[in-house]
Amino acid sequence: MRTIEWRDGVVVTIDQTRLPNEEVFLELKSLQEVASAIKEMKVRGAPLIGVTAAYGLALAAYHSKAKTRENILKELEASANVIRATRPTAVNLFWAVDRILKRAYETVGDHEAVRRAVIEEANRMADEDVEVNRRIGRNGSRLLKDGDTVLTHCNAGSLATVDYGTALAVIRSAWEEGKRVSVIADETRPKLQGARLTAYELMRDGVPVTLITDSMVGYVMAEGLVDKVIVGADRIVQDAVINKIGTYTVAVLAHEHGVPFYVAAPKSTFDLERKAEEVEIEMRSPEEVTHIGSVRIAPEGVKVLNPAFDITPISYVTAIICEDGVIYKEEFERDLKGETGTR
Amino acid sequence: MRTIEWRDGVVVTIDQTRLPNEEVFLELKSLQEVASAIKEMKVRGAPLIGVTAAYGLALAAYHSKAKTRENILKELEASANVIRATRPTAVNLFWAVDRILKRAYETVGDHEAVRRAVIEEANRMADEDVEVNRRIGRNGSRLLKDGDTVLTHCNAGSLATVDYGTALAVIRSAWEEGKRVSVIADETRPKLQGARLTAYELMRDGVPVTLITDSMVGYVMAEGLVDKVIVGADRIVQDAVINKIGTYTVAVLAHEHGVPFYVAAPKSTFDLERKAEEVEIEMRSPEEVTHIGSVRIAPEGVKVLNPAFDITPISYVTAIICEDGVIYKEEFERDLKGETGTR
Repeated sequence: MRTIEWRDGVVVTIDQTRLPNEEVFLELKSLQEVASAIKEMKVRGAPLIGVTAAYGLALAAYHSKAKTRENILKELEASANVIRATRPTAVNLFWAVDRILKRAYETVGDHEAVRRAVIEEANRMADEDVEVNRRIGRNGSRLLKDGDTVLTHCNAGSLATVDYGTALAVIRSAWEEGKRVSVIADETRPKLQGARLTAYELMRDGVPVTLITDSMVGYVMAEGLVDKVIVGADRIVQDAVINKIGTYTVAVLAHEHGVPFYVAAPKSTFDLERKAEEVEIEMRSPEEVTHIGSVRIAPEGVKVLNPAFDITPISYVTAIICEDGVIYKEEFERDLKGETGTR
Repeated sequence: MRTIEWRDGVVVTIDQTRLPNEEVFLELKSLQEVASAIKEMKVRGAPLIGVTAAYGLALAAYHSKAKTRENILKELEASANVIRATRPTAVNLFWAVDRILKRAYETVGDHEAVRRAVIEEANRMADEDVEVNRRIGRNGSRLLKDGDTVLTHCNAGSLATVDYGTALAVIRSAWEEGKRVSVIADETRPKLQGARLTAYELMRDGVPVTLITDSMVGYVMAEGLVDKVIVGADRIVQDAVINKIGTYTVAVLAHEHGVPFYVAAPKSTFDLERKAEEVEIEMRSPEEVTHIGSVRIAPEGVKVLNPAFDITPISYVTAIICEDGVIYKEEFERDLKGETGTR
């Protein structure tokens, strides 16, 4: 099942804040509705945020009343700024917006030609995302053995992408090849993407999954229950992987227990011009920590810290699995030093 | 405020599952009610479980219809088995039951004398707990500097004891001495003792506290926000500290970041005849992980692992703070090797 679809001027996607209890589909009809859905994490996951951002610009183009090429380009620039202001950390959002704008500017012809090109490009990006994820899956599955148990954090599955996932693509691919892998999913507070989304996806596919709280990651590793860790990424910079809060905690534990720590992500997540210190870590509202649904779980007025992401230095990463192959840490660092860029 | 009190045949305590939203007092009138309160974690925290267990036997003695010394002793033995079967991991429970039984057997006189002695001993243990905690506080506060931020896991506060706490006794003591310490409390899933109880206690005392999710411990340490970690213990064995699930994860992170990791616990928590592998780690129900209050947060039927405790090898522990002083890891290990026991 695809998580996002363009239906002639409407973007249809699933409301991820309602899963797994309810499957509610959203019909996003304007740029503003797309921006809100991203901000409120109804749509989440770096690759899916990228494609949704592209569709946001497609909606802007679709509804544009511009009568000249110049005006539609101006409108797209303004729309791009609305989308860019939604969430600061995942780089796919900026990558997608830039790619759409580039396509718009490069299109020869009038405003109608630009409009068509933008919508086409968004659809192409959605299709490419699925193809890229299948390649990530095939590349990564070579790292998994029959019988392996993989721990994953947050949700880097179908629901984080257009389809198939990144970290979960590796697991799906191994499973489809007949390897009996199983998964330990940590719940991933505060937003519970592991409990709500990863467990849901894997159960639907029949892949054995065990749910734990985030605090149990040390326990399962000490008990020898984890063979590998695979997570996704919101942004890969020169010196670190930036991903959902809690990823760094898992990485340190993997390192301490000699468990390989893999990051599965498309190249659209790479931002190799930057270092971690240059990236803004989004801080989200205290209510995400003090409430679960409508249930208050902490005293009124308590001070809260709620960073949405953390920074895992490359030294903790065994390898990055992308659509072009498996890049081991040593190679990643060598490529950067050689200033050749990474692929 | 004391968390537990004997009022002539009734044990009054606060229902910790309802905090911080409601302050509900329980009136426990029988051994069975005490056993249920411990099992359901309405009463929790190793030292408080110990004293509550003692009061359970006091209730059994109080209501006993035995007319001979022999019969009341038999009843107490049977009652002890009921209490011992409630929770397997915290050693204070077994320590308290054994101490009450010993006192009963050593009492000279008839069934009335035994009855009185058991009730007296339970009250004495409650008073001693407060005195011991004050000494833990004074001993530990020497380790804290003005301006320190202390991270704590779970609740080792007043609510885990009769009063004053163990880990939080150290913080309270430093605070009372005028040191401006502050606390980072992790929420401690699945039962949220950090969010519900530690934040509540410290806010009531005016000690600055910031709440984070368990997954953020790596983040706050990497950001340099944590000067020391202090936790409690459910059982200290020859080679490890057994404490609330997630403690080991915090210990590994502290080790990786060079942050001192202290365990504050009374000697009634020491079980130096045993190694960690001999201790049963209680497994609790999946619903603690899949639900928060009445809110389901994971798919129906998902497999769950829910150990209530984990094992932190002594090598990760900087020192143990007890009522007799601060025992550094090296001294703890030397004392054991010398087979002198530890104090």
